[in-house]
Amino acid sequence: MLLIFNHYKIIIEMGIQQLAETTKKASIKLAAINTIAKNNALAAIAKKLNNNRTAIIEANNTDIAEAEKNNLEAPLLKRLKFDNSKIDDTITGIESLIKLADPVGATIKATELYDGMELYQVSCPIGVIGVVFESRPDALVQISTLCLKSGNGVLLKGGSEALHTNRILTKLIGEATSETGIPEGWAQLLETRSDVNEMLKADKYIDLIIPRGSNEFVQYIMNNSNIPVLGHADGICHSYVDTDADIDAAVKIAVDSKTQYVAVCNALETLLVHEKIAKEFLPKFKTAVEAKGATLKGCVKTTEIINIEPATDEDWRTEYLDYILSIKIVVDMQEAIDHIHQYGSGHTDAILTDNESTAAYFIQNVDTGNVFWNCSTRFSDGFRYGLGAEVGVSTNKIHARGPVGLEGLMIYKWVMKGNKQIVADFAEGKKQFTHKPLDKRFKI
Amino acid sequence: MLLIFNHYKIIIEMGIQQLAETTKKASIKLAAINTIAKNNALAAIAKKLNNNRTAIIEANNTDIAEAEKNNLEAPLLKRLKFDNSKIDDTITGIESLIKLADPVGATIKATELYDGMELYQVSCPIGVIGVVFESRPDALVQISTLCLKSGNGVLLKGGSEALHTNRILTKLIGEATSETGIPEGWAQLLETRSDVNEMLKADKYIDLIIPRGSNEFVQYIMNNSNIPVLGHADGICHSYVDTDADIDAAVKIAVDSKTQYVAVCNALETLLVHEKIAKEFLPKFKTAVEAKGATLKGCVKTTEIINIEPATDEDWRTEYLDYILSIKIVVDMQEAIDHIHQYGSGHTDAILTDNESTAAYFIQNVDTGNVFWNCSTRFSDGFRYGLGAEVGVSTNKIHARGPVGLEGLMIYKWVMKGNKQIVADFAEGKKQFTHKPLDKRFKI
Repeated sequence: MLLIFNHYKIIIEMGIQQLAETTKKASIKLAAINTIAKNNALAAIAKKLNNNRTAIIEANNTDIAEAEKNNLEAPLLKRLKFDNSKIDDTITGIESLIKLADPVGATIKATELYDGMELYQVSCPIGVIGVVFESRPDALVQISTLCLKSGNGVLLKGGSEALHTNRILTKLIGEATSETGIPEGWAQLLETRSDVNEMLKADKYIDLIIPRGSNEFVQYIMNNSNIPVLGHADGICHSYVDTDADIDAAVKIAVDSKTQYVAVCNALETLLVHEKIAKEFLPKFKTAVEAKGATLKGCVKTTEIINIEPATDEDWRTEYLDYILSIKIVVDMQEAIDHIHQYGSGHTDAILTDNESTAAYFIQNVDTGNVFWNCSTRFSDGFRYGLGAEVGVSTNKIHARGPVGLEGLMIYKWVMKGNKQIVADFAEGKKQFTHKPLDKRFKI
Repeated sequence: MLLIFNHYKIIIEMGIQQLAETTKKASIKLAAINTIAKNNALAAIAKKLNNNRTAIIEANNTDIAEAEKNNLEAPLLKRLKFDNSKIDDTITGIESLIKLADPVGATIKATELYDGMELYQVSCPIGVIGVVFESRPDALVQISTLCLKSGNGVLLKGGSEALHTNRILTKLIGEATSETGIPEGWAQLLETRSDVNEMLKADKYIDLIIPRGSNEFVQYIMNNSNIPVLGHADGICHSYVDTDADIDAAVKIAVDSKTQYVAVCNALETLLVHEKIAKEFLPKFKTAVEAKGATLKGCVKTTEIINIEPATDEDWRTEYLDYILSIKIVVDMQEAIDHIHQYGSGHTDAILTDNESTAAYFIQNVDTGNVFWNCSTRFSDGFRYGLGAEVGVSTNKIHARGPVGLEGLMIYKWVMKGNKQIVADFAEGKKQFTHKPLDKRFKI
């Protein structure tokens, strides 16, 4: 069975270090491949998926049957399912990606250093990305096609429940790209947890790890690798209902933030309410959010206004991912901001107010990846931002923050076109740098 | 003695975790401080340094005396020296920094998501940077003023030889900035190696570590911290002399790359020579580079043309930082590129050729931070690039690459100005995203 799949054969024969080395070598060639060739390869992937629906669905049915046998929960089963409609969506996604501009080769900055000596900062792929993701087969296609468009090699480790589906998808993607001239080995599947542990040691070949998963999992990766990690900690998102909030809108927005979909990192976990508006706001909010099935916990002041369970300090640190919300009354906006900095995770934090200068202060002073004014925290998402597919969400403070699309997979190199200059002439004062900004794109 | 210095008092009373927490809190306020206030504070630092020359030089003399007692080598003593002329240069540097545009608050991208709902990607400081640097007191001023201009808090650990100078500089910088309204504690000095080890654990408060030092030191930092590290491995720089090189220019450039200043990461360590040009190039090069006092080592083919020591595999991996150069003859450019990828450190790699398409291939296919055509590797430097002062050099593949100036100290946040939208309306198809690019800057 296993030997049917080329990539698997490679894994067992090669070991993960060698596999990563292969991907590194392929990634260097892939970095220099032009836009037309990459788009042709993307179109070939779409076609290959379309032509192999039966085989894909068959493999997915094997995964589903296994998962049902193991009593996988209904929402997880739903995410695992890869049927004709999901294949349609995936193909549409690839078609959108083809239309996006190629992020490789953009001139970020151009400077004349001296007559005939030009320095360019040019965008280029990062190299090899290792991505660990959940049991959602469409994620495998999204991640690998984002990497292809951005010229990066990729090592993929999907949830083990999706193994059969992931195998056939990786095989089809590999075939489609080999047939269109993309270097063999640019995208490869890892299959086991021990493969992941091996990958963490391959810092010679892998340039970035993107772990999609729990905070504990991301921490585990960080503790066990020297490779830079782009990931997110808990999504402990806050909304602050200011004294100048439009109460009906605030109720509606907070209810949406909490209940529109609870099992996600951008759902609201703690509501901070200005004490001056609490008596009017809280009863209305309680009625509306309980109607959606949510349970509330509150600070002492909150429990004096509405009849709910008391919250403990632990609640402020908790990402419920469930129909539960903690509420705290604050004496002013500064207390709300301090609470967010103490307990938040720098994911998404919002202010609900009609006062523009209050909103401005909040936006400037809250240190978070996504800071929202008068809308639901649930908008914090790569698709909704118009980034195309997202490769992950980052609560890092370097490289990329918030939803990460194509741009997060890019870095740059400095390209100098010289004219036989030597440093000695400048050091000895014979020549002077001009440092003139150039309105010019790098072109080879 | 120790208690004279405020910051030192803080360290011994607080411990590094608390110190880092203080800096974190100050950094959040600093992030919201406007350009005029930051420039005023920079001007105050320049004035304070100018007004306290005697005290600074006295402290520096204490360090110099101690270093001489400990037989510090002459080049290191020279770097440690902070006299009137160095103070002049430092003040000039601050004046240039004041003139640079404020990197905070720039709109990177603006998108309309829906009528009245606008998403902005806005540049902001990273937060708190921990910088470990060599015994060069001017580095302390450069790093801290770069951090101030970019709105970042900073923990500074300089070489222990410069302790007295660093103490007074940190004290003066702290006084100048407190007097001009910058939050207390934004820049603080660490004094011992164990302080650094404590800092590595403060991942709750520190967002980025920039270690300037040897490859071993950078590796040590990476192995002992979860905080992202921006640093550089060895600078094993290559120049490839192509068959179409202008021989006289190639000799001159390669000699400059190796000998203009040997103790730096952008000096040439390995010269790769196309076999077709080797017989003509090598004897001329040998004469010129040996006249500068350099010793050569070469591959077997090289030793058949010029009479030099043989190189071993270890030489290709060695950053000499000395008047030594290894030479390898390659059969074609691809062998040169493969050699660079196998032994290089992704710092700076150059091609010397008059053939434009050969240069283009090299530029596109060499994965390195700085790729040069027809000039000396020694140009790879933040000052020469016109970036102003540099906070470090990165051979990382994410966030920033090559010389890192102000821009490398920036990240962004996503700011959403909503109009009371909820996600449910979009999920249920009542509203559609417009995703229209906006030609608009974020303004509060």
